[in-house]
Amino acid sequence: MAAKLRSRNHEVAVDASVFDRINSFAARYPARFAIVVFAAINLVFAVLFATPWAAADGQATPFWDALFTAVSVVCVTGLSVVDMATHWSSFGDALTLVGVEVGSVGVLTLTSFLGMVVARRLGLRQRLMAASETNVSRVRGGVVSESQAIRLGDIGQLLRLVIISVLTFEFALVLLLLPRILLEGVPFLEALYQATYWSFMSFTNSGFSPTVDGLAPYATDPWMLSVLMLGVFVGSLGFPVYFVLLRNLGNPRHWSLHVKLTITGATGLFVLGALVYFLLELGNSESWGTLDPGQQVLQALFMSTMTRSGGFALHDLSNLNQSSMLITDMLMFIGGGSASTAGGIKVTTLAILFLAAIAEARGRRDMEAFGKRIPPDILRLAVSVTLWGATIVAVMTTLLLHITKEPLSLVLFEVISAFATCGLSSGVTSQDMPTAAKALLSLTMLIGRIGGVTLAAALASRQRPRLFSRPEERPLVG
Amino acid sequence: MAAKLRSRNHEVAVDASVFDRINSFAARYPARFAIVVFAAINLVFAVLFATPWAAADGQATPFWDALFTAVSVVCVTGLSVVDMATHWSSFGDALTLVGVEVGSVGVLTLTSFLGMVVARRLGLRQRLMAASETNVSRVRGGVVSESQAIRLGDIGQLLRLVIISVLTFEFALVLLLLPRILLEGVPFLEALYQATYWSFMSFTNSGFSPTVDGLAPYATDPWMLSVLMLGVFVGSLGFPVYFVLLRNLGNPRHWSLHVKLTITGATGLFVLGALVYFLLELGNSESWGTLDPGQQVLQALFMSTMTRSGGFALHDLSNLNQSSMLITDMLMFIGGGSASTAGGIKVTTLAILFLAAIAEARGRRDMEAFGKRIPPDILRLAVSVTLWGATIVAVMTTLLLHITKEPLSLVLFEVISAFATCGLSSGVTSQDMPTAAKALLSLTMLIGRIGGVTLAAALASRQRPRLFSRPEERPLVG
Ligand SMILES: [K+]
Ligand SMILES: [K+]
Repeated sequence: MAAKLRSRNHEVAVDASVFDRINSFAARYPARFAIVVFAAINLVFAVLFATPWAAADGQATPFWDALFTAVSVVCVTGLSVVDMATHWSSFGDALTLVGVEVGSVGVLTLTSFLGMVVARRLGLRQRLMAASETNVSRVRGGVVSESQAIRLGDIGQLLRLVIISVLTFEFALVLLLLPRILLEGVPFLEALYQATYWSFMSFTNSGFSPTVDGLAPYATDPWMLSVLMLGVFVGSLGFPVYFVLLRNLGNPRHWSLHVKLTITGATGLFVLGALVYFLLELGNSESWGTLDPGQQVLQALFMSTMTRSGGFALHDLSNLNQSSMLITDMLMFIGGGSASTAGGIKVTTLAILFLAAIAEARGRRDMEAFGKRIPPDILRLAVSVTLWGATIVAVMTTLLLHITKEPLSLVLFEVISAFATCGLSSGVTSQDMPTAAKALLSLTMLIGRIGGVTLAAALASRQRPRLFSRPEERPLVG
Repeated sequence: MAAKLRSRNHEVAVDASVFDRINSFAARYPARFAIVVFAAINLVFAVLFATPWAAADGQATPFWDALFTAVSVVCVTGLSVVDMATHWSSFGDALTLVGVEVGSVGVLTLTSFLGMVVARRLGLRQRLMAASETNVSRVRGGVVSESQAIRLGDIGQLLRLVIISVLTFEFALVLLLLPRILLEGVPFLEALYQATYWSFMSFTNSGFSPTVDGLAPYATDPWMLSVLMLGVFVGSLGFPVYFVLLRNLGNPRHWSLHVKLTITGATGLFVLGALVYFLLELGNSESWGTLDPGQQVLQALFMSTMTRSGGFALHDLSNLNQSSMLITDMLMFIGGGSASTAGGIKVTTLAILFLAAIAEARGRRDMEAFGKRIPPDILRLAVSVTLWGATIVAVMTTLLLHITKEPLSLVLFEVISAFATCGLSSGVTSQDMPTAAKALLSLTMLIGRIGGVTLAAALASRQRPRLFSRPEERPLVG
């Protein structure tokens, strides 16, 4: 009896010790910890997708296809090597729905969490804004001090806020979608499933379709397309934006600079992108260029929205003009808002780069926007993020070009789509592409979702701050 | 008699007044003045190339072909819509040789001159280093003060130094090339002409060929290719580097940060580029991938050097693997050294971007290199240059894709080659390409050579410095 008691105490002690060690690792190496957790989630889903229960035919799915699917789901990308509507069983479909929610909510929380803990080590103090705007009071007080211990429990409140807002938005989208799907004569329960699926896929910017036909029945339907555009656009703005808007929707003077930059940038890209698509596709009978003018506008608007990183497609994108595909490459690379379900280098990152160029051309000392001055160290972070993205895209495109021998136009499109977790496909992704190509694209999706700064932080060894300053010297550039 | 005298005095007065007004315009709007002068030089050469005397067949060359040639020559690009070796008369050949010298020396001087005068208005103080390193004593004293008038006469000393060093390098190259060409059995005077032509074309990074065969007779010749590589590589380093090296060649501790960054960057790109070309082309029988190993190394090294912006080609570049072409795109976009005959965004610009990313990842406050601290405002200039380049390339590629309907791989290659005044061709440039395409590529070469910062400075209206500081706010990025 005494021995048994001692043994139970011992077990509890071991458990506590394991938990302590995880906690200690998370506190010491938060970026590495986040990446390990996120990679583990992807791997668990890969194993589940590979099981015979997940497939409609009861056969085990080949590992690389299961992994590709898992990464595409958890990273809310939307590229697929199998037909998502037919290949999976109900269990597989459930995995997909749970996966995109875990992926989007999980990553957002992880990002904000990392914002808190990584900031003090990296000096990325601006990342704290995400946390402060989600009302985590301990962060409100200012920058977390070096000695302050951060524990896993801190993310609880943040997570709750994120989940509530996600579910609210998604429920609203279901209400908007359901009547339209019922109108098609779909039975109620099936319609509810489809509406839920479309709602999740649009708000999380995932881009998978619940049915074999996909969006074909609604290809020219203004209501359905508008609701999906709304879901994708709002989903791509990001949580820091919602929280400010929910409190101050009618009071733009209280909007933060981040909110103004994100909304202006996203709206600008939406309108400009649509205009360019409209002009470039005029007269192209392979896409929408010969439909009536109203439809041309609708299709151009839809296409522009989906590059944010929605990933729904109404057309075989390789039928677009190559010029339109290049425009898509650029729009996808930019992506959506910070701390959102969208990918890419983010709208504000691009805005900062342009604000820097404008300040330089005007000979101003400071970057300025909306009557506010932007501190110069943010430019350095924006450069890091962009350079990291460009490097990943360049390396992966070079390798995939070499492996697949497909045209640059298609390969570049697919790589950027994967990197920016957009999910629009030029057709390069397929079940019979080489395994190495599947592995590389999976890796691109994963890296793109984790984000360059987080990864670089994880890889960089701990550095002591310099206590001396080196002599200054100015090289020439340009 | 009195009337005649008054008339002469009047003429002198008018002349002085015109000169004064030009001088005043140059002092008030130095960037606009420089662009007007440079554009005028291009136009003069276009008119001369269009005359019947310039063509071998005594016929007037169509204007757009003459303009394309003039811009390609004066911007030391090397793309051509006519066969440069056969289309032109001796007068036309002379125009080409004079054009590349005027273009390279002229632009360099103009750049340095602008460095002096634009700096005080733009706060681009680092540009002054170019001037200070060429020993213009008035700049030595420090940043030119706002009230100090700048006159055209100041560029005299600078111009003399540049011309002397260019001619010395080019004479040395002629001496190295001449024996090899004589060995081919070419008569002495013709060999001297060819050696001079190759020398000018390699050192100015122009890339035209004096003969119909071009480099075909020397396609595997280590001596000839090595000399051309040397010419292109040294030419691409830039004048600020020469002047420091000439005084302190054996004393690297006295090299400036600019010299160290340029030499390290250029050497790194040369070696890394060659390695990647070697690996990607292994086994490609359409290029050099099936030659003996020594030749494969030589060809990879040659190809890597020419992307700096030499522009000589030994192969039909569309026969390279698409992956190699993408690598070429990137290397060309980077280009050579600042204030050199090479184009692109420049090696130091890329270095600054990477140093910023490294500092960010390590959590350092300052960008550092070779034991020196780099002031953060240089990052803003590097971002401006890069963003400008990327925008030009993106817009021009989109337009050319739309006009020519050629594959992205070829069009992107040609546009970057034109922007970076590299002159390697994927085959898109030809006499029968649409006039709009010729005009757009001409514009790309011109804009690429003038440089984004200069152009932006010219376009921006005068700004009064702000006397107040706006409140600071930090948006999220990445
Ligand atoms: K997506
Ligand atoms: K060139």
